[in-house]
Amino acid sequence: MPVLNNISQLATCPPDEPQQDAGLIENAALVWTDGLIRWAGPHTDIPAEYRDEPVIDCGQRLVIPGLVDCHTHLCFGGWRGDEFELRLRGASYQEIARAGGGIASTVAATRAASLDELRHKAESILDEMLVLGITTVECKSGYGLDEANELKQLEVYRLLNHSHAIDLVPTFLGAHIVPPEYEKHRDRYISLLCDTLIPEIARRSLAKFCDAFVETGAYSVAEAHHILGVAISHGLGVKVHADQLSDGGGAELAAELGAVSAEHLEYISDAGIEAMAASDTVAVSLPLASLYLAAPYMPARKMMDRGVAVAVATDFNPGSSPSYHLPLAMTLACVHQGMTPQEALKAATSVAAKAVSLDKQIGALLPGYAADLAIIDSPDLNHWLYHFRPNACTAVMKNGLWVYGGL
Amino acid sequence: MPVLNNISQLATCPPDEPQQDAGLIENAALVWTDGLIRWAGPHTDIPAEYRDEPVIDCGQRLVIPGLVDCHTHLCFGGWRGDEFELRLRGASYQEIARAGGGIASTVAATRAASLDELRHKAESILDEMLVLGITTVECKSGYGLDEANELKQLEVYRLLNHSHAIDLVPTFLGAHIVPPEYEKHRDRYISLLCDTLIPEIARRSLAKFCDAFVETGAYSVAEAHHILGVAISHGLGVKVHADQLSDGGGAELAAELGAVSAEHLEYISDAGIEAMAASDTVAVSLPLASLYLAAPYMPARKMMDRGVAVAVATDFNPGSSPSYHLPLAMTLACVHQGMTPQEALKAATSVAAKAVSLDKQIGALLPGYAADLAIIDSPDLNHWLYHFRPNACTAVMKNGLWVYGGL
Repeated sequence: MPVLNNISQLATCPPDEPQQDAGLIENAALVWTDGLIRWAGPHTDIPAEYRDEPVIDCGQRLVIPGLVDCHTHLCFGGWRGDEFELRLRGASYQEIARAGGGIASTVAATRAASLDELRHKAESILDEMLVLGITTVECKSGYGLDEANELKQLEVYRLLNHSHAIDLVPTFLGAHIVPPEYEKHRDRYISLLCDTLIPEIARRSLAKFCDAFVETGAYSVAEAHHILGVAISHGLGVKVHADQLSDGGGAELAAELGAVSAEHLEYISDAGIEAMAASDTVAVSLPLASLYLAAPYMPARKMMDRGVAVAVATDFNPGSSPSYHLPLAMTLACVHQGMTPQEALKAATSVAAKAVSLDKQIGALLPGYAADLAIIDSPDLNHWLYHFRPNACTAVMKNGLWVYGGL
Repeated sequence: MPVLNNISQLATCPPDEPQQDAGLIENAALVWTDGLIRWAGPHTDIPAEYRDEPVIDCGQRLVIPGLVDCHTHLCFGGWRGDEFELRLRGASYQEIARAGGGIASTVAATRAASLDELRHKAESILDEMLVLGITTVECKSGYGLDEANELKQLEVYRLLNHSHAIDLVPTFLGAHIVPPEYEKHRDRYISLLCDTLIPEIARRSLAKFCDAFVETGAYSVAEAHHILGVAISHGLGVKVHADQLSDGGGAELAAELGAVSAEHLEYISDAGIEAMAASDTVAVSLPLASLYLAAPYMPARKMMDRGVAVAVATDFNPGSSPSYHLPLAMTLACVHQGMTPQEALKAATSVAAKAVSLDKQIGALLPGYAADLAIIDSPDLNHWLYHFRPNACTAVMKNGLWVYGGL
């Protein structure tokens, strides 16, 4: 039962305390065994029973729970770097889409890629996420948009969940956009989702959640209500891409359906905020997407002040957020959204954990929680999120085992 | 005379071409010897004389000139992470300064630190800059603000310039703020700068440039004109911290004095832009400072369109820009300032080189230039600056020698 000692600051991230309280303990120690945290507290309080256990010296560094990236589009074919330049030269998202770019081009590249190609590509990205301190990743389909290719993406996630140290939480996002070949028959595509894909995915446990993109040009509130209702009836949890480009009532829909989360919310209305505050639905903010699109940020400060739990995730995808640097997203949440470092850390640990609602307890360093943690080469949380380095994480533990670095 | 071959894209960054032309060559090769580039071009055009030379395979990666960070405050004591939290909680920069924080607290910490402490700290930061692909760093004094401590900072730079692979370009910034003990006698401090420090620093070649912070609360245009005039008379080049928090006429002063660069310029006026455009003075944009201060960005697009050469640098310092991630600054310059990836790369290579004006030729991969280069694990420039990773640089060459990674 090893003891991790000489921790300059430990962030326990208690989920039952307000978001501004990351449970910081100076000069701390931590005990784990069998993949679970046993004890955490000031090093002077180590219980007598652990005092003769082997000690690992943390070297006066910060220790945090393993980070949870609760919104990514991990698996896709191709990239869209040249669109980045086109947008900088003034082309609009719509113009690029009309020229064959945008989500449709990623759909084409994802369909053209083999399962093995997609798996290798996603695996190398997970390797880089892990060394940033990320130990759990939600990952959406939604670039296949037909039966074979949506299942192919979810199959990639199933395989990687078995083989990679990071835990994956798969989400079915068949309702991402309406694929080009169904443009004039959207009802038929929605039938494919509701009558074929959702039942099969639920039966084979290929996804834990079903998500829908509620937006002009994607799905209406009524369509999403129908699709997500079918998902619920098949035992899936639900998520909603809501109010990203305009206030479309997505937040209210998420609250009404008891969704585990509503994501984006850059244009959430006051009514949407009230609906979220009255629900258990987590608001997932995606500041990197705002950065890349030079778009507004979710009004996270206002929402937290009204009692909404706010998570922060990367939205990693090849179009609007081609970075998986979750610590950068956290620093942006501080600078652009008025979150304190403690709020931003909880947003990427215990609050994000609520947005993926696993059976096991993750996102906090409290007795009974998974021993998922990251050691950060920084004296404290404020310093870490302020002194933005390429990567300050020096070691990662997953289920009690060192999976990167180590001491 | 080794040949670097199988380069997916080579950015030669020719200084005599417009900023939008980074001299991109697909499927390129490059030849160097004795620390200098000999030849660069399409691999099909390798001259016969090099065809039997040893070949190093670049593995279809991007190759760029070593990056030049032309504005940093590299050497300082302490950090100010807790001020970051205070500002997020609503405290103003002025309130923090009144409570003993701000630049004055860094001055106190820098004075309290020994030369060896400062040297070790700055050295470990240079190590991390190098692996990002940075091979030349301008570095300012300005946290000593008395004779012994300004010289101490410049001495740190002199030692590191001898011992570290990165070339340092030291700048004397005694005119950063007026130190607290001279608050009521600012003339005496300016006399110390002009009559004692500038002559001594010039005589001992401890700095290449003299810089002054023209701003309400720092130095007036008239004071800076006097100080920088003295520096010029002693053979130093000059730089100006200008128009950062308000339009104070700093850009016009820089142009009038023939300064090598004017830096910040977030609030530059149209008259300032015209003055810069009619001069050879480089505008140095510092997007990370805008990010951290949630402040406006320099209007780089407008300035480039009027013919101003715009460099991008980090402004690394413990207050307003506690990150030295120059590639992040370049991505921000694209997203927030409308620079294309080619313009942003030239901003951190050949244009930045003009802002440090070394005797040797750096910042481009053309015959006769220093063989300073970085290998980027990315197929092309657009992809690199769009797919922001913790660090995509896999190898760095300085004066023809591999100083990180290698092939």
